[in-house]
Amino acid sequence: MRPDGRENPLQLRPIHIDTNYLKHPEGSVLISVGETKVICTASVEDRVPPFMRGEGKGWITAEYSMLPRATETRNIRESSKGKVSGRTMEIQRLIGRALRAIVDLNKIGERTVWIDCDVIQADGGTRTASITGAFVAMAIAMNKLQEAKKLPSFPINDFLAATSVGVMEENGVVLDLNYAEDSSALVDMNVVMTGSGEFVELQGTGEESTFSHSQLQSMIDAAQKGINELIEMQKQVLGDIALKIESRKGE
Amino acid sequence: MRPDGRENPLQLRPIHIDTNYLKHPEGSVLISVGETKVICTASVEDRVPPFMRGEGKGWITAEYSMLPRATETRNIRESSKGKVSGRTMEIQRLIGRALRAIVDLNKIGERTVWIDCDVIQADGGTRTASITGAFVAMAIAMNKLQEAKKLPSFPINDFLAATSVGVMEENGVVLDLNYAEDSSALVDMNVVMTGSGEFVELQGTGEESTFSHSQLQSMIDAAQKGINELIEMQKQVLGDIALKIESRKGE
Amino acid sequence: MRPDGRENPLQLRPIHIDTNYLKHPEGSVLISVGETKVICTASVEDRVPPFMRGEGKGWITAEYSMLPRATETRNIRESSKGKVSGRTMEIQRLIGRALRAIVDLNKIGERTVWIDCDVIQADGGTRTASITGAFVAMAIAMNKLQEAKKLPSFPINDFLAATSVGVMEENGVVLDLNYAEDSSALVDMNVVMTGSGEFVELQGTGEESTFSHSQLQSMIDAAQKGINELIEMQKQVLGDIALKIESRKGE
Amino acid sequence: MRPDGRENPLQLRPIHIDTNYLKHPEGSVLISVGETKVICTASVEDRVPPFMRGEGKGWITAEYSMLPRATETRNIRESSKGKVSGRTMEIQRLIGRALRAIVDLNKIGERTVWIDCDVIQADGGTRTASITGAFVAMAIAMNKLQEAKKLPSFPINDFLAATSVGVMEENGVVLDLNYAEDSSALVDMNVVMTGSGEFVELQGTGEESTFSHSQLQSMIDAAQKGINELIEMQKQVLGDIALKIESRKGE
Amino acid sequence: MRPDGRENPLQLRPIHIDTNYLKHPEGSVLISVGETKVICTASVEDRVPPFMRGEGKGWITAEYSMLPRATETRNIRESSKGKVSGRTMEIQRLIGRALRAIVDLNKIGERTVWIDCDVIQADGGTRTASITGAFVAMAIAMNKLQEAKKLPSFPINDFLAATSVGVMEENGVVLDLNYAEDSSALVDMNVVMTGSGEFVELQGTGEESTFSHSQLQSMIDAAQKGINELIEMQKQVLGDIALKIESRKGE
Amino acid sequence: MRPDGRENPLQLRPIHIDTNYLKHPEGSVLISVGETKVICTASVEDRVPPFMRGEGKGWITAEYSMLPRATETRNIRESSKGKVSGRTMEIQRLIGRALRAIVDLNKIGERTVWIDCDVIQADGGTRTASITGAFVAMAIAMNKLQEAKKLPSFPINDFLAATSVGVMEENGVVLDLNYAEDSSALVDMNVVMTGSGEFVELQGTGEESTFSHSQLQSMIDAAQKGINELIEMQKQVLGDIALKIESRKGE
Repeated sequence: MRPDGRENPLQLRPIHIDTNYLKHPEGSVLISVGETKVICTASVEDRVPPFMRGEGKGWITAEYSMLPRATETRNIRESSKGKVSGRTMEIQRLIGRALRAIVDLNKIGERTVWIDCDVIQADGGTRTASITGAFVAMAIAMNKLQEAKKLPSFPINDFLAATSVGVMEENGVVLDLNYAEDSSALVDMNVVMTGSGEFVELQGTGEESTFSHSQLQSMIDAAQKGINELIEMQKQVLGDIALKIESRKGE
Repeated sequence: MRPDGRENPLQLRPIHIDTNYLKHPEGSVLISVGETKVICTASVEDRVPPFMRGEGKGWITAEYSMLPRATETRNIRESSKGKVSGRTMEIQRLIGRALRAIVDLNKIGERTVWIDCDVIQADGGTRTASITGAFVAMAIAMNKLQEAKKLPSFPINDFLAATSVGVMEENGVVLDLNYAEDSSALVDMNVVMTGSGEFVELQGTGEESTFSHSQLQSMIDAAQKGINELIEMQKQVLGDIALKIESRKGE
Repeated sequence: MRPDGRENPLQLRPIHIDTNYLKHPEGSVLISVGETKVICTASVEDRVPPFMRGEGKGWITAEYSMLPRATETRNIRESSKGKVSGRTMEIQRLIGRALRAIVDLNKIGERTVWIDCDVIQADGGTRTASITGAFVAMAIAMNKLQEAKKLPSFPINDFLAATSVGVMEENGVVLDLNYAEDSSALVDMNVVMTGSGEFVELQGTGEESTFSHSQLQSMIDAAQKGINELIEMQKQVLGDIALKIESRKGE
Repeated sequence: MRPDGRENPLQLRPIHIDTNYLKHPEGSVLISVGETKVICTASVEDRVPPFMRGEGKGWITAEYSMLPRATETRNIRESSKGKVSGRTMEIQRLIGRALRAIVDLNKIGERTVWIDCDVIQADGGTRTASITGAFVAMAIAMNKLQEAKKLPSFPINDFLAATSVGVMEENGVVLDLNYAEDSSALVDMNVVMTGSGEFVELQGTGEESTFSHSQLQSMIDAAQKGINELIEMQKQVLGDIALKIESRKGE
Repeated sequence: MRPDGRENPLQLRPIHIDTNYLKHPEGSVLISVGETKVICTASVEDRVPPFMRGEGKGWITAEYSMLPRATETRNIRESSKGKVSGRTMEIQRLIGRALRAIVDLNKIGERTVWIDCDVIQADGGTRTASITGAFVAMAIAMNKLQEAKKLPSFPINDFLAATSVGVMEENGVVLDLNYAEDSSALVDMNVVMTGSGEFVELQGTGEESTFSHSQLQSMIDAAQKGINELIEMQKQVLGDIALKIESRKGE
Repeated sequence: MRPDGRENPLQLRPIHIDTNYLKHPEGSVLISVGETKVICTASVEDRVPPFMRGEGKGWITAEYSMLPRATETRNIRESSKGKVSGRTMEIQRLIGRALRAIVDLNKIGERTVWIDCDVIQADGGTRTASITGAFVAMAIAMNKLQEAKKLPSFPINDFLAATSVGVMEENGVVLDLNYAEDSSALVDMNVVMTGSGEFVELQGTGEESTFSHSQLQSMIDAAQKGINELIEMQKQVLGDIALKIESRKGE
């Protein structure tokens, strides 16, 4: 039995994705993965960073933050500290990189898609929930751009979702760790995969510990199972937009 | 007719206050004032800032922020800029000061109550919605402290709510301006009042304009009406906690 | 009897305004309000901030600072701390906003008038002394611009001065609080008004306290009296420049 | 043929590790991996960060930097920019985490070992060269501590080295990418392993691309081969210190 | 003839030192050296920086700043930029170091004397005017400490003043350069000397130029002459305090 | 006998200058002055800072840093502190100013030469070693520019080197102080001179002490001797490039 009552080590927590959660952004969702809740928005800006100007190509970049009381004890705001932590930077670089892997940047023109992932409640797996939610927000924003006839064709080539897997002292390999599990895991791995089952990012870390080749294999299998389920949910909430992605897969 | 369809210049927008919105904070609400939505949390820390240590007295302080895409166009995060704007500082100082006016700080012991107001969607009046919502979150947190037998008696002396009033070129004095009204108002005034009808804070500003004594009087009357209605709603959502405050009023 | 010997609660402290105090700025004064002394300068720059370019309109902005030993105990410089405090930001935003209310920005062309208020000695009321002094410095600078034939007509529409009022535990409503009074006042209100008796800004704050409608009225009356006297002094030191403003009043 | 003349895709670049390169640090090396050169130092401080005090346990932390002209074009110093980049933070967090995995922190007492990796010349693989070199510098410093009778027993449990692998458009999987290869690789993976062949960290990233299960397997095999060779070199330069580690392996 | 009308290259500008210029600081002066005007204050704090605690010894440190419009064109405030410039740091380190050279720090106990030099009008030589003025402000503060029976004996061992000398293309060696001279000088040298004619600091700089041994000698002679005159003025304004310093000279 | 075994107070430490130490920069050296080791690089950028654009003239600027463990105890990185210390700023301003004194900036076109001095091991005299080494790195870079036909003629007018001198309690005047000497010197002076024996910079400081005219003279004589020897070494390592400088001397 897992700390939040799940009976199966390879079971995801309950997932909900509320689309169009906010009125201003081009795309937005509120994603819940168990008790972890993240507002993901996609904002389209009609220009690219200076280093990319004139190439006719777009850019996708992400920012991540937590409300101060998303966690058990209150965190000092990064705006008050005057700097962004290393952890935040790592996460937002990961989100941006992951999304860029399944978008054809040449198709979005000289535009920047800003992804904002704001965690309003944290219970482990905030970075993977952010990626899974941000994909949906971005797909909605891209669809809006296409419907406004601003794109030559739909620029998203595949689905994209992420989950965490880990190795626990007693339970062995588990899928989708909540905070209690994450705190005591020997190994922690985040996996980002596409709808076609390809890896986009794999980050496995021994926490003052190490892991073997066979543990790696079991973790990857567990992650694959979880990501397949997450992508099914993305398809449901995206409806017709999912069909556009489906039709492009493999291109 | 007002931009959002209200027919009466002295009509508030629809108000909703969802209490216990998040699981970690001692008190939390999601307040909606029309399309303006703010998550307000109250976090209790068992110590006070260095300058107050040893006085046996508590402190209440507030922080305010907006999600980057709470607004029509995306704002750069203050954590990325590395500093908090003057507007943010003004607002968070106002929220803290207002709440301290109706709390007996001697009764909460050497504790700090951190108020966090995070605007997830902005449509005018975010600072007054923050105060109205933060009051409720704080009352819930204080009640939790009291139920845990940590307080000698209930420390909140009165209700507290805030609203905006303004002078429009065509419509004259209006209550509870949305963003469209706020942008074109000649005069903008924020009023914070108690349940007993006393002023806590009054901030009126001519926007490249000025206002007369009689306009001031009309704005104050409008604000008084709105605040009475807001306090009625606070009483409803607070239930038994409201009775505790009621019984202390005037002390 | 008040702490500095004034016998009347509605009496201003002695006011001195030395014009052309420094040689480099287009306009400058040293204003003394009792023991509070502020150097106010107005600097004209031949361009506007990026967000205003191409509109053919000018801008007025203010900065405020205190020498480290303007106060009873030495303050750390904001340049050493690497950031400007919330209090400083509030004050400099107030000064800029107040001055913009009585200037026709279309008449000054694409220029920025920088107002700098540097408190060299503080004894309460530094923000209101800054506004009263900055108005004079700005008027001198505008006159210099007009004499250099750079303006179509005189751009200042009215006089502008500011003072503080408050409610004391024993003395009731008092005008122009010095530091000792300010520290123990129950209510503190800053009022900015024009020569025509219109409000530009009204900021009343209960300091862990509240105030009634009738106290508000008494404070406003006191402020009005003080501001009338301050504007008389501005007229004296401005001489012929005052006549230019006089002739425009009401336009 | 690879850009730097290596004929085998699974061949490491020439490695040199000069030990005791600097006179002040407890441990120091200059490591060269091809044209990549990093000064790695280990400094022992007799206290731990505040969050660890009183636990009787030590800490290992790392900082990473590049000389401005370590690269083809000059980079602005992070000290001049006033902040550390996300890339730097990611790398220094990785180095510290990797080293902590093979040290028994309980054995070093309340001490911090600061690892500094300063890249003086960069040609790809600076983070993996830093880990491989830092391990040697740390072992030397630990040995010095032990010889000074400050440790109960030797605290390093295993060897540790790191390398990069990648997938190239034409050459397929390659080991130890130089800068030219790194810039055009489809997939980039950094692997940190122990002398026992266990994983400590695995970070694979598709660069606007994805990778399959079988490519992952090939990359891991290549990394394993390279790391074995690197650890052989560490053993040679460490001499007797290597025997101490060897005797502890598996504990 | 020099740009400001002085006929002699070895003539100082008119000097005025107003003592006790501000009411709060323990010592304060307004010093004018020609058109250069600096407010110098000395503030006594009853503790020393952490690195000196427990040694029974005091510390003297200085800060320097310019009002934004002290100069011909307005400078951005260092508090707005969020950092102190290299020029400011150089100057404030120089002022502190110079004053420490003639004070017996053991005699002032564990106290810090903060020197603040705020330039309100600049016309060349602001750093040397700051030192000359700060010496007087510090002497007044030390005298106040001694009169309050807080010191074992008077801690200032000698007088201290500073001036600038330079080499001009046409006029050769000149004393006490104003801004116009400073801008076109080939060599610029600041000299700090004691009342006994010993050097405390000598900083000579060729401005995209060099200087010979004989030019150096002429500059030193000129500086000596100027500093003797400055110290005479210090003696006059210090009155009885000067006698205390006089009686300690040589100790 | 001096702390590092030198028998003569006017003897330099052993000097080594390794040219072309790094592969990327246009010019680079590793200079050792005794145990002090500095990597000096010269990087050419094809543009000048904004304030110089359009003048057809070049610029030379320097940055200086120490590795954290260049010193006996580890220093916190300035990038981690988020700001550059006053000491660093003083040194890098000195290096840049010194080099500009012997270069004809009109001859290098609108280019910036960035000098980076990174101290990898410190034992006193790091700033003077930096200047002596940076001169050589810059000469190599200028030669490369000339060989690429980018300059009208060789732009360096003279040799340039720097050393430190000081006054010790027991040994009197000494040349080229190591760290042990520097820490206990009564007077510390840095001298920068040209190959023609002209001064470029002279900075003498009494360390809570003062110095006489005759001590100044002895220090200058010692510095002159040391600088002559340093310039001889520069000539040797520069080979043919030295001849180019020689032929321009006096122009």
